[in-house]
Amino acid sequence: MKLFTSVHDVSDINALAAEALQLKQNPFAHQHLGKSKTLGLVFLNPSLRTRMSTQKAALNLGMNVMVLNIDKEGWALELQDGAIMNGGTVEHVREAAAVMGQYVDIIGVRSFPGLKDREEDYSEAIFNKFVQYCGVPVVSLESATRHPLQSLADLVTIQELKKTARPKVVLAWAPHIKALPQAVPNSFAEWMCKADIDFTIAHPAGYELNTDFTDGATITNDLNEALSGADFIYVKNWSAYEPYGKVLPGNEDWMLNNEKLKLSNNAKVMHCLPVRRNLELSDEILDGPNSVVVHEAGNRVWAAQAVLKQMLETL
Amino acid sequence: MKLFTSVHDVSDINALAAEALQLKQNPFAHQHLGKSKTLGLVFLNPSLRTRMSTQKAALNLGMNVMVLNIDKEGWALELQDGAIMNGGTVEHVREAAAVMGQYVDIIGVRSFPGLKDREEDYSEAIFNKFVQYCGVPVVSLESATRHPLQSLADLVTIQELKKTARPKVVLAWAPHIKALPQAVPNSFAEWMCKADIDFTIAHPAGYELNTDFTDGATITNDLNEALSGADFIYVKNWSAYEPYGKVLPGNEDWMLNNEKLKLSNNAKVMHCLPVRRNLELSDEILDGPNSVVVHEAGNRVWAAQAVLKQMLETL
Amino acid sequence: MKLFTSVHDVSDINALAAEALQLKQNPFAHQHLGKSKTLGLVFLNPSLRTRMSTQKAALNLGMNVMVLNIDKEGWALELQDGAIMNGGTVEHVREAAAVMGQYVDIIGVRSFPGLKDREEDYSEAIFNKFVQYCGVPVVSLESATRHPLQSLADLVTIQELKKTARPKVVLAWAPHIKALPQAVPNSFAEWMCKADIDFTIAHPAGYELNTDFTDGATITNDLNEALSGADFIYVKNWSAYEPYGKVLPGNEDWMLNNEKLKLSNNAKVMHCLPVRRNLELSDEILDGPNSVVVHEAGNRVWAAQAVLKQMLETL
Repeated sequence: MKLFTSVHDVSDINALAAEALQLKQNPFAHQHLGKSKTLGLVFLNPSLRTRMSTQKAALNLGMNVMVLNIDKEGWALELQDGAIMNGGTVEHVREAAAVMGQYVDIIGVRSFPGLKDREEDYSEAIFNKFVQYCGVPVVSLESATRHPLQSLADLVTIQELKKTARPKVVLAWAPHIKALPQAVPNSFAEWMCKADIDFTIAHPAGYELNTDFTDGATITNDLNEALSGADFIYVKNWSAYEPYGKVLPGNEDWMLNNEKLKLSNNAKVMHCLPVRRNLELSDEILDGPNSVVVHEAGNRVWAAQAVLKQMLETL
Repeated sequence: MKLFTSVHDVSDINALAAEALQLKQNPFAHQHLGKSKTLGLVFLNPSLRTRMSTQKAALNLGMNVMVLNIDKEGWALELQDGAIMNGGTVEHVREAAAVMGQYVDIIGVRSFPGLKDREEDYSEAIFNKFVQYCGVPVVSLESATRHPLQSLADLVTIQELKKTARPKVVLAWAPHIKALPQAVPNSFAEWMCKADIDFTIAHPAGYELNTDFTDGATITNDLNEALSGADFIYVKNWSAYEPYGKVLPGNEDWMLNNEKLKLSNNAKVMHCLPVRRNLELSDEILDGPNSVVVHEAGNRVWAAQAVLKQMLETL
Repeated sequence: MKLFTSVHDVSDINALAAEALQLKQNPFAHQHLGKSKTLGLVFLNPSLRTRMSTQKAALNLGMNVMVLNIDKEGWALELQDGAIMNGGTVEHVREAAAVMGQYVDIIGVRSFPGLKDREEDYSEAIFNKFVQYCGVPVVSLESATRHPLQSLADLVTIQELKKTARPKVVLAWAPHIKALPQAVPNSFAEWMCKADIDFTIAHPAGYELNTDFTDGATITNDLNEALSGADFIYVKNWSAYEPYGKVLPGNEDWMLNNEKLKLSNNAKVMHCLPVRRNLELSDEILDGPNSVVVHEAGNRVWAAQAVLKQMLETL
């Protein structure tokens, strides 16, 4: 594997998820693969789970890790081709990416969307420039429109915990006070549409996702209907795709609580975290027996390790 | 050892100090213990000595280390149970701690007090929540009310440098322009009260420490009397416990200088650092033959290594 | 080697450059040297290339690395001897440096000039205090007036790519909107003056460098004349030495472009990066066949590794 930026980079998602679960059983079996190899993690935005789980995955594989918070330890990058750089940007991404590629064997990049200009965000300009210029394999640590390491960990969690061959999985929109990216729901949707599951997306009217990511999903504005018979409920807020990046008024009643959970098939409740308690999910859910959010976060290690292992094997 | 947050977590402080001194003689003898084990260091506040010495200790034991400046690289944590998280906090400490525990084998946490609300600070809310939810052994890197790795290094330093079986040790308050926590003096006092020494605390009236930490100490407002015959003088500023977190006017003459040092038994002068020169301690002391502050800082490695070693042995 | 702060610390620059090129062929041959040894990298200013390349060099040698962004993760250092520290500085560099020396085997320090007070900057106060008090070998990661790891990498690049025994190398001033330090051009000049090359410095009137660094160079205000027959053009902006730290009006036509490049002997174009595109260097140059800026940045690893190797050999 040379690139891990979306589900389209993976030939067999079930095999990759199975490999992650094997690594979970035997984390240190492949330390020879990473010997004298270095992973560079470049953050243009904050991170806790992705930062720590990807580091841990690399260490399990015997790699060295260098972390660069380029926004805080470095400087502002120029993205525009042809720019006359007489303003605030200090280095063009062409040079920055190419230089980092001189120092590491694999690069992970995190770059959030601005949520101002949909076309710009969905063009994945900065991400694609890193891929184009760095000259080494690139892992997405969450881009403007996708978060594939999260989605793989989610698939791993579902494969690991499912009690039926083809569980019903519901992506359920939840309220938030801030405008959040569509990266996690986009990415979850495109992975679930390829998985052996029955997939439903529930959101209030106005929160339709870009249809590029939802082909094959059942989509409804009726949360209760969606929850009926659900084996997994994946709770997540996102801002509107149209009008782009907006939070629409109302919909506070979309918070998942025990009353709504009763409609499901005793569903496991998932969330990528961080979660706003008593806004997206009630305390009773998060502290109750159906929440698997911490277990799911733990699986981030094995997802990242499966991807890094496949990249190391092709170096 | 599963927890290192105060002297009460240690069954035999002399044995632990002795182990630290053995590690100083042979730093790399236990690298097998840390193989494929990871230490996570979580900082909610700045750090130099604790950050570097604890990393070094872990590396000496063959561990991997992941550092997270959660205030800068992550986001604001919610501490209040039951909070409706519609404000500035992004993640509840329940999730943050539990998730970190998925990625590391031992967690170190630094969290300073706010110095506004004494009850809140002395409840050690954030610290106790980390311990409660992370699911792995926890080392204090300084909490609101204690700094046990510092105190152990201080005990190690006294054991190493003492010239009599039962030296006289004086904790001497010193002036400062800012309101500083009581963590270092609290912690030093509770360790010294359990050590084989003659322990005196000297401070101006109004700077009484919480008596939970000082049981067995001689306490005086007369610095000169305290210094008489002292073998070790531990200089440190702290703000008042009552009224909480306040700096009282006056007392500039409590700065230790050579003239005062003459009253002692040619005492070694200690300080946890960082030290304000010519405010807490004069240049002549810090640059003179009696200062052991750098040596003491060096011993932070062996203190941390002894604690981490005992934790690794129980994993 | 105990100190690497300028060309004067190196007995034979050609031998050191040759060693760097040998390490490039065989990066992991000396991992025993760094076993259980720790490099501390202390940044008082941002860094990308130096940060990553020096870490990579240390990892190649089997060392552990601890990075400290003291300005962000620590606190403000006091530099003035005799200061009464009742202001904003939290720790004197005497203690900070001495303490860090307790935790690491080699220290790298980055500290930029203030560009306000020439005498202060050129005294290298903070740098010299680190050297004086830390007690371990010190590598400059760029100081107020020099950047020797960059200069060594530049020499390595010239040795590696030259097509004649004694190439003509031109240091060519270029425009910028900010006042930049003289560290890179000073350092490049003093290394080139000792190398087996024909060295010319071209800059507009008013940008004369301190003559301590330029002894033996041909110096001209005529860029076209300088470029004639050049084999390597090293493009770099710097602010004036007199009046200190100022950007003089005009000189925008000093940007290197393909038209000017034609005057040269099909020269390789170098730059230490970060580079302002279309201000210092045109896109056509940076994206064209003559640019070696990324290759040059890659050589930073081997320069740092050669220096660290020589230091490890004398520990």
